[in-house]
Amino acid sequence: MPTITQTIPGGVTAATGFRAAGVSAGIKANGNPDLAVLVSDAPAQAAAVFTTNKAIAAPVVVSRQHLARSGGVARAIVVNSGCANACTGEEGLTVARDTTAEAAYLVGCPAEQVLVASTGVIGVALPFEKVRSGLAVAMRSLGADQGPQAARAIMTTDPFPKEAAARFAIGGRDAAIGGMAKGSGMIEPMMATMLGFVTTDAAVPQPLLQRALREAVHDTFNAITVDGECSTNDCVMLLANGASGLSVDDSSYGAFAAALTSVCRELALGIVRGGEGATKLVTVTVTGAASSDEARKAAKAIANSPLVKTAIHGGDPNWGRLIAVAGRAGVDFNLRQARVTIGTIVLFEDGRPHDESAPEAANYLKNDDISVSVDLGVGSAAFTVWTCDLSAEYVRINAEYRT
Amino acid sequence: MPTITQTIPGGVTAATGFRAAGVSAGIKANGNPDLAVLVSDAPAQAAAVFTTNKAIAAPVVVSRQHLARSGGVARAIVVNSGCANACTGEEGLTVARDTTAEAAYLVGCPAEQVLVASTGVIGVALPFEKVRSGLAVAMRSLGADQGPQAARAIMTTDPFPKEAAARFAIGGRDAAIGGMAKGSGMIEPMMATMLGFVTTDAAVPQPLLQRALREAVHDTFNAITVDGECSTNDCVMLLANGASGLSVDDSSYGAFAAALTSVCRELALGIVRGGEGATKLVTVTVTGAASSDEARKAAKAIANSPLVKTAIHGGDPNWGRLIAVAGRAGVDFNLRQARVTIGTIVLFEDGRPHDESAPEAANYLKNDDISVSVDLGVGSAAFTVWTCDLSAEYVRINAEYRT
Repeated sequence: MPTITQTIPGGVTAATGFRAAGVSAGIKANGNPDLAVLVSDAPAQAAAVFTTNKAIAAPVVVSRQHLARSGGVARAIVVNSGCANACTGEEGLTVARDTTAEAAYLVGCPAEQVLVASTGVIGVALPFEKVRSGLAVAMRSLGADQGPQAARAIMTTDPFPKEAAARFAIGGRDAAIGGMAKGSGMIEPMMATMLGFVTTDAAVPQPLLQRALREAVHDTFNAITVDGECSTNDCVMLLANGASGLSVDDSSYGAFAAALTSVCRELALGIVRGGEGATKLVTVTVTGAASSDEARKAAKAIANSPLVKTAIHGGDPNWGRLIAVAGRAGVDFNLRQARVTIGTIVLFEDGRPHDESAPEAANYLKNDDISVSVDLGVGSAAFTVWTCDLSAEYVRINAEYRT
Repeated sequence: MPTITQTIPGGVTAATGFRAAGVSAGIKANGNPDLAVLVSDAPAQAAAVFTTNKAIAAPVVVSRQHLARSGGVARAIVVNSGCANACTGEEGLTVARDTTAEAAYLVGCPAEQVLVASTGVIGVALPFEKVRSGLAVAMRSLGADQGPQAARAIMTTDPFPKEAAARFAIGGRDAAIGGMAKGSGMIEPMMATMLGFVTTDAAVPQPLLQRALREAVHDTFNAITVDGECSTNDCVMLLANGASGLSVDDSSYGAFAAALTSVCRELALGIVRGGEGATKLVTVTVTGAASSDEARKAAKAIANSPLVKTAIHGGDPNWGRLIAVAGRAGVDFNLRQARVTIGTIVLFEDGRPHDESAPEAANYLKNDDISVSVDLGVGSAAFTVWTCDLSAEYVRINAEYRT
């Protein structure tokens, strides 16, 4: 059956049966919104992917445990910004657990059906009293129209909130998927954290839900990079409550996965556009690789190269830097068969430069959304990642004194 | 026997029987010195290590071939700056070979006893006529007092020339080791290239010479990083001509290797101090690792982290960033046993911050030479790397338009 995904307005409450809230709990010293709650009216199947960092934060530990104990069922997610609750020892775990217990009491569900996420300064205690009083206010403000407030409450130095939603149809029924994310903005200034929360009113068996999330994240949230850092708190969570009456099974998995990937990609691109000091969205495609993994590895190396990122920031069609990074990326590479393309302009091919095209490429690089691609010249696999340029503003944001 | 290495003034001509020259051949548009020649009066044992980049430049191809054909014997090295002779196809190889032939004719040796190295813009043809006329001038200017001129002629955007030398004694005889290097400065602005040239008047059998160079480079030139890039042209070459009468064998290898490592470390640290936009020399030591390789991997991850480098630039004792990078470095790591030290000030230990020491650490970070260390908490292996901070000036240098 054909896969049709239609973009719609909205975010985490675009799907039926989800309510959200975003309030100021006083965790951020400046009084900005810092506590978001997301509630499913009925128990939802839940899937999640977490940071691969070995210094994992307390909320990651607790959310993992709860997903295991509940068998992948959740009613609510509590997210705070302003404090990462990372490197906080036993006390940090206690605050994370107390937060789930308090939310569970207010929602009326077992504590193991509440997930938590945090973003903010590492090594600072999360004040539970502020979380508790914030939760009470948030529960009273829950609404199907409060998605934008929730999306604002999870922001740190993000320049704008990130929301996306889509509708998809399977067998005459349709369902919605919506989400919100926060990006790689340093906080006061602290470790960048990426958080994503996605909901759907489709009914999806948990194993299929987890598979769809893992695959979508691989091609979207895990295919973006601002500075190559992976935080202690990164996570993406997905809830499916079945309120639409549409059920996803193995035969309709493709349509669901496509819609989910579409929403995740939109959120991920929003994170890159809002990267620290970013002035350009850069799409890096590597083709001609020996395998998809090698294409991904080379694309990430290019996307994280300060030499490439500064050249793009300066509007310099510096194909030599792209070749040199591809050459050091630790993947199969054949210089004689390699090709560098900026936009649609070929600058290096058959072992020779095409510098006569450099002025045209420089002109193209003035755009806000640009693409570069490198063909490694050894195979047929490809992968695309997204990044932003590296500006002096990035250095300024991250060099400011924390204490 | 005790190993005694004594630092002495000088560079690539500190050892007996080596002459050098540095001239302006017109390869650089601004007329700065751009051609260096190094000649050993007698055939020297030669060792070299080259870039691991798969997009290798023509001079690397040719020098590798010559070392293989000559059995590791060399009389001269020709180095040009201003043009990398990389991604230049067959013509580039021809120019590199013609350069060795011309130098061999002037020196009076087989072409295979001449090595070449280049640094500068990728993808631009190296004009052989300029190299040829420059070589003629350089050969007339050769002198045992011309090391500083050679060190200047290999510079690109390096803020200062890098020279170092040492004297060591074995069994009542003594010998000298001296060298020059150019650093990770972008050129006009182009891929950073690291070149190092070291000479000794000790007699060292070629296999021992190659081993000593490989080991010294591992702990020095390969333990520094400015921006994590590895160029198409990187190389370190070492000539041993035996003019001192001191012979190194297996039993005296340690003394020679220690002196060589000392000279290489001094040159390597000079490169870091002269890194683009650098304001601080940062020594990153990782301890408590499962293996030396894992210690090295974690130390490199920390040294290349833009979040760590900007924090240090801003004087921020941000131990959370160090923990977070160690946690994502892909090595064994135990948060509960981990420790972060800035200077001698412990900021994180036993799973808990010591933020009461942050002001003292911030004060320490005002120094130009600073050290940070992370104990991974899993084993007893250690490794040290050196890097510089990341400043807005780095972005400015590398974002400037090339064409």
